[in-house]
Amino acid sequence: MNQATVEDVVRRAFAEDLGCGGDITSEATVPAGSRIAGRIVARREGVIAGVDAACCAFRLLDDGVEISVECGDGERVDGERVDGGGTVLRLHGNARALLTAERTALNLLGHLSGIATATAGLAAAIEGYRARITCTRKTTPGLRALEKRAVRLGGGSNHRFGLGDAVLIKDNHIAIAGGIRPAIERARIAAGHMRKVEVEVDTLEQLEQALAAGPPDAVLLDNMRPAGLARAVELVAGRATTEASGGITAETIQDVAASGVDYISVGWITHSAPALDIGLDVETPG
Amino acid sequence: MNQATVEDVVRRAFAEDLGCGGDITSEATVPAGSRIAGRIVARREGVIAGVDAACCAFRLLDDGVEISVECGDGERVDGERVDGGGTVLRLHGNARALLTAERTALNLLGHLSGIATATAGLAAAIEGYRARITCTRKTTPGLRALEKRAVRLGGGSNHRFGLGDAVLIKDNHIAIAGGIRPAIERARIAAGHMRKVEVEVDTLEQLEQALAAGPPDAVLLDNMRPAGLARAVELVAGRATTEASGGITAETIQDVAASGVDYISVGWITHSAPALDIGLDVETPG
Amino acid sequence: MNQATVEDVVRRAFAEDLGCGGDITSEATVPAGSRIAGRIVARREGVIAGVDAACCAFRLLDDGVEISVECGDGERVDGERVDGGGTVLRLHGNARALLTAERTALNLLGHLSGIATATAGLAAAIEGYRARITCTRKTTPGLRALEKRAVRLGGGSNHRFGLGDAVLIKDNHIAIAGGIRPAIERARIAAGHMRKVEVEVDTLEQLEQALAAGPPDAVLLDNMRPAGLARAVELVAGRATTEASGGITAETIQDVAASGVDYISVGWITHSAPALDIGLDVETPG
Amino acid sequence: MNQATVEDVVRRAFAEDLGCGGDITSEATVPAGSRIAGRIVARREGVIAGVDAACCAFRLLDDGVEISVECGDGERVDGERVDGGGTVLRLHGNARALLTAERTALNLLGHLSGIATATAGLAAAIEGYRARITCTRKTTPGLRALEKRAVRLGGGSNHRFGLGDAVLIKDNHIAIAGGIRPAIERARIAAGHMRKVEVEVDTLEQLEQALAAGPPDAVLLDNMRPAGLARAVELVAGRATTEASGGITAETIQDVAASGVDYISVGWITHSAPALDIGLDVETPG
Amino acid sequence: MNQATVEDVVRRAFAEDLGCGGDITSEATVPAGSRIAGRIVARREGVIAGVDAACCAFRLLDDGVEISVECGDGERVDGERVDGGGTVLRLHGNARALLTAERTALNLLGHLSGIATATAGLAAAIEGYRARITCTRKTTPGLRALEKRAVRLGGGSNHRFGLGDAVLIKDNHIAIAGGIRPAIERARIAAGHMRKVEVEVDTLEQLEQALAAGPPDAVLLDNMRPAGLARAVELVAGRATTEASGGITAETIQDVAASGVDYISVGWITHSAPALDIGLDVETPG
Amino acid sequence: MNQATVEDVVRRAFAEDLGCGGDITSEATVPAGSRIAGRIVARREGVIAGVDAACCAFRLLDDGVEISVECGDGERVDGERVDGGGTVLRLHGNARALLTAERTALNLLGHLSGIATATAGLAAAIEGYRARITCTRKTTPGLRALEKRAVRLGGGSNHRFGLGDAVLIKDNHIAIAGGIRPAIERARIAAGHMRKVEVEVDTLEQLEQALAAGPPDAVLLDNMRPAGLARAVELVAGRATTEASGGITAETIQDVAASGVDYISVGWITHSAPALDIGLDVETPG
Repeated sequence: MNQATVEDVVRRAFAEDLGCGGDITSEATVPAGSRIAGRIVARREGVIAGVDAACCAFRLLDDGVEISVECGDGERVDGERVDGGGTVLRLHGNARALLTAERTALNLLGHLSGIATATAGLAAAIEGYRARITCTRKTTPGLRALEKRAVRLGGGSNHRFGLGDAVLIKDNHIAIAGGIRPAIERARIAAGHMRKVEVEVDTLEQLEQALAAGPPDAVLLDNMRPAGLARAVELVAGRATTEASGGITAETIQDVAASGVDYISVGWITHSAPALDIGLDVETPG
Repeated sequence: MNQATVEDVVRRAFAEDLGCGGDITSEATVPAGSRIAGRIVARREGVIAGVDAACCAFRLLDDGVEISVECGDGERVDGERVDGGGTVLRLHGNARALLTAERTALNLLGHLSGIATATAGLAAAIEGYRARITCTRKTTPGLRALEKRAVRLGGGSNHRFGLGDAVLIKDNHIAIAGGIRPAIERARIAAGHMRKVEVEVDTLEQLEQALAAGPPDAVLLDNMRPAGLARAVELVAGRATTEASGGITAETIQDVAASGVDYISVGWITHSAPALDIGLDVETPG
Repeated sequence: MNQATVEDVVRRAFAEDLGCGGDITSEATVPAGSRIAGRIVARREGVIAGVDAACCAFRLLDDGVEISVECGDGERVDGERVDGGGTVLRLHGNARALLTAERTALNLLGHLSGIATATAGLAAAIEGYRARITCTRKTTPGLRALEKRAVRLGGGSNHRFGLGDAVLIKDNHIAIAGGIRPAIERARIAAGHMRKVEVEVDTLEQLEQALAAGPPDAVLLDNMRPAGLARAVELVAGRATTEASGGITAETIQDVAASGVDYISVGWITHSAPALDIGLDVETPG
Repeated sequence: MNQATVEDVVRRAFAEDLGCGGDITSEATVPAGSRIAGRIVARREGVIAGVDAACCAFRLLDDGVEISVECGDGERVDGERVDGGGTVLRLHGNARALLTAERTALNLLGHLSGIATATAGLAAAIEGYRARITCTRKTTPGLRALEKRAVRLGGGSNHRFGLGDAVLIKDNHIAIAGGIRPAIERARIAAGHMRKVEVEVDTLEQLEQALAAGPPDAVLLDNMRPAGLARAVELVAGRATTEASGGITAETIQDVAASGVDYISVGWITHSAPALDIGLDVETPG
Repeated sequence: MNQATVEDVVRRAFAEDLGCGGDITSEATVPAGSRIAGRIVARREGVIAGVDAACCAFRLLDDGVEISVECGDGERVDGERVDGGGTVLRLHGNARALLTAERTALNLLGHLSGIATATAGLAAAIEGYRARITCTRKTTPGLRALEKRAVRLGGGSNHRFGLGDAVLIKDNHIAIAGGIRPAIERARIAAGHMRKVEVEVDTLEQLEQALAAGPPDAVLLDNMRPAGLARAVELVAGRATTEASGGITAETIQDVAASGVDYISVGWITHSAPALDIGLDVETPG
Repeated sequence: MNQATVEDVVRRAFAEDLGCGGDITSEATVPAGSRIAGRIVARREGVIAGVDAACCAFRLLDDGVEISVECGDGERVDGERVDGGGTVLRLHGNARALLTAERTALNLLGHLSGIATATAGLAAAIEGYRARITCTRKTTPGLRALEKRAVRLGGGSNHRFGLGDAVLIKDNHIAIAGGIRPAIERARIAAGHMRKVEVEVDTLEQLEQALAAGPPDAVLLDNMRPAGLARAVELVAGRATTEASGGITAETIQDVAASGVDYISVGWITHSAPALDIGLDVETPG
């Protein structure tokens, strides 16, 4: 992952937290040269994401900090599970700097690990099915790149990174374009040879129109019940990737997966996943 | 609220979403001059926050858009409740621009209204008690000012905006400073006459030490059970503001409030509140 | 096109040109309130791009300037040809402001119109063939979004906007991954259902390996001679989009197109197209 | 050269290229820890500029990369010529990082070396004459500082860096100021003692007026034919620096230089010089 | 102090000073590899602040520079006095880089040390009295965090860092709110438990009203003469912190302090303190 | 003056002052819709600068504010004197917004008017002499463009805007270059035809060496006493512009001017001029 993106997020977080005054508590109570050692610990079981962001926060305020990552997201594509009480990383460095950076580091770790954990929970629920979990553009403003990566670390796949990656024709585009066929035709020209075209459909009739227009690369089957999804998969017959969406929860996801769709997109893993509870235990001063 | 802050958040969200390619779907399918009218609608009951951010998103891409806000957060200190299906605002403007801005506007509205709604739920649960809900610094990096405002709109009060507003002495500060008394004494000098000093205590013994050091402005009673909180409030006897914290949920908050504390701080209203489901219904093209 | 991107480019150009000193010549020689009218004129025939950037430059320094665009890039997907001497836009406003903005506006117009004109020239040369011109990532740092749009205005199609839009597996990726097949297989998983996978091949043997790995969405036929390209198109037999690349010039492009490829990518239209000569004629003061 | 300027350009280029998604191809196909060695090679003969920008790109993504520059622009004022096939620099480092940075580094190297090469070509054409090549403000928005340096590396001299360095009175300023004399007089006061004043003239009559106003520091002889230039140089008789400008090409520059002018300014070396073809040859993995 | 804030200030200063052209003098006259050693020296006695900013300037342009700080502001809360001729720091590094950074470093050191010195002068003048010097929000735009720290280094205390730290109710707020009592009551709710409320009063009558509204945390006694201040202190009787303000100079401050107030706020220490004269003596080349 | 520069300064000032919390006092005490009218008044006689910055501050927070400027710096080159009590501008607009912007606007007005007033004082002291006041690069980081303009408004002339405008060879450059002559010769080549070359000399011997090297455009006569300056002016005999510098105060400036130098540069007008006392009088609510 591009470290410039990570650093930019961390710098903005510090700008918010430090403002003009800085960390007046640590400056007052902690002697300038004192050092501490500590562990970042997951208070509950989960999949960790955001380790590089946390490290960046500590390093920006203490460029001599020693960090040993015990579990990570640097290099792995699917995430690492940590038990409740498990150590994420160990730190040793300047006491003031680490206490000042603590909240920023934990806010990022907790938020991103919450997303990875939620994604992993859904992925586990549909293990054995063909379907993969995918995310949406319902992300937190300013954090999209990090949240998309957290989804990958949780075992999910990424939908579009932004509006320029691929075409996704929705109901309003269809209405304005005057139908599914003209919308697809115009979109194909604009997309060129390097971008895919997906069409959102609500009914099997719309699906048939989409397929008749020369099948798009993917169809988004929105708010269909499992039986409808299964019928849609049958209709598509491999001519396009199938994606189910619309209010899918941990309770309903197995039924959705059983329909045979290729992807299940879930907005709440990025916009509503609760943070994973992660804290800093200071072990020994010095 | 400072509109420059809001605009900065929206611009960063657009940078993520539009990248180099822009909204290729709308450019392909929507004729350049076409116009639409629509309503932003809450799909579920909740307290709305972030209306100014949503308006900013639409206006940045269509400076001629007409918006009428049906409920709002511009001027009110406590939030406005909208029923499921209720209209947040009405829009009329350039079709391409409004469809391009839609997701950015809804991401902000949903996230911030989720926070306001969660806060309002807790505030309602303790109505009649002395205690007020307050937030923490466990906010989403880059969105703190907007999230703190959403807490106010939900009927909560704000704890520190950043590390420079006030002193909050925690366990690590105490350990390094060599005790509660020296920590408080140094903090008072650093705080000067315009910043408050709060001390976090875990036990009644620590509380007595803090009070003996000349009572700080506030004491944070961390992870105490209701009986302990009630005893702490008694001990403090009005000499400091009392604040309870630590894993407080909708289930436990009434018991906490019954202890007589002045404030109850809850981290999850900013880091884990689910987004409020809010969508755009396009009504009539043109 | 996202106006925030355009404005950001123009602001950076002004920061370079105005520095701390500003336009000392115009401040010294032009009375503060004086007004001028003028025309932006193409000195040579070409396809115009960058009109919105030029307008942005003039408006940022004179928010009351009146501009009438005589030809444009606002709404059209393929570009508008202007004869040598043809008017691009007419201006009327504050004399100091317009003279200060002149060079910034013309630098953008000339550069982007140069790209559109070069693209249009190649597109015209292969009219009647199946192939379309497409660009590369060989763009000028900081101007990619505007240059990609200029390519579209010149009648070309866009290849990737950045490294995250689509997978393009090149020789080095293949070497490190241990072959074409493992590279394609890993890439497909990473790409998910919304991103295409293209593979660059230098020989027909490599092409066969790529097709055997389950045809990728597109194959980039690099530095092949027309006969080889024709043979490659035959081999592909519609199973993937075909794209020719590698040192293609106005002289050789017809032979390339005659091979039957779908796309011809040309780096020089963005990195080496000469600027179109465009100037400002001040017509009447006042 | 100020490295902060260089780094800012590179960071913006990465923001464009990496967006939210990053380099999905390299992440998918290249194992996280693998290393490569390679050479940046000029495919054609030319003068190299932009080596520090290329190094910056590789270092920002791999802070442990080893680079040995074989030819350079760090310390020399006139540029270094490399033969076709000549090595610009050697690299050894993280494979993913270097492949991700490759295009950004090459885009900068190719563009800036193209400018240096074009400048050197013109400088060589007039060797033996008094005249020196100088550039204009017709630069690429966002890259002016780097392009001006490339001109120096190609053996040229720099005209103004921006509008605040010096006064250049053009036809429109003269028309609005009411003549050459009042324009020069006002400009001298504004310029103070640390900025030069140049006047653009189209005819010998205008030149005489400029000289009569107390000779300005320099006169820009615009669009004059060689005979006119020679007559102008004679008229000036050393009282001002003489500069010829206006559509000067490699074909016409010797005749211009033979007129005896001090400087010849050429816009196309910055706005229309073709990029020098430079590539990365990966030599041995690891 | 947060180094990101310091670095941001230094980078903006370089952007102003280096522009597109860079330090053409040093590039022309100083060979690329030459080295110098030098001392930063205070030409007059004073209290030093801004050492970290000066170091940052030198390090940004020469990351290998060796600096030994002889007196400092890194770790001390009250400032260090240097005699006229005293050394602030010693430098050894690249000659070009250090000469280019010199002015930026000295501008920051001189400005901030001027503030620390002025503060220390006032603090010395009232030694033995209860009162402490405090600053205001009358700071230089862009430098507030550094100026506030300089006040602390000079022995002063900080008033608000910004408008969000604490409430300060002034005459206009009172007039619009309809009186002191309603203004205080509304402010208390908004301030919550972590922010103090101060009220500015001009007369003893207003002071009595403020105290009667439940004493605010602090009262700002504006433009009162020493006798009035003494009477006000008596009236307050320890129920609120007392702060005197309004045109207090070195001549009048002892009389103000003798009134028994807790704090004396002085705007001119940040907006009008003369810079401390500090220069660079280059000692030995190499 | 470039409004983008002004706006950038104002936005940074707001970022400092508003932080995450905003103006909690005005939000608490001032009803959302209330309006006020007021006057910005100079408390003491002086020359006004920074009116556009103050207007920008009010307009950024209230885009409907009505402002009538009673004295100004928009269009005049030499500054306008206002008596103590004189009105700078009148305002009518949203009460909260104007009170929030007040301090930012006044900080800029006071600082810049202090510079203009100090400059005007020195200019008046040497009226009738040939010499003009000029500033230095000893400016406040981040405010150089505004401070340079304030110097002009006070009747002064500007020295270099930054290190790229002109060459100024100082003692350290001479020492490293191996003498005045080689330093001047190298500088002339680097400066080209559009940048002046000035040399700093401390003695008449150095001055003679500089003149012997082909006179530079200007000589900076540093720390010479009036008699030495007069002798230097005689020596120069019109071959270069003469500039006196070094600790010149209001007391000594007439003697310096009487020496016949062309310019007198004074650092303290930008780094140590006291702010002009300017305040906001709210006149009538509504």
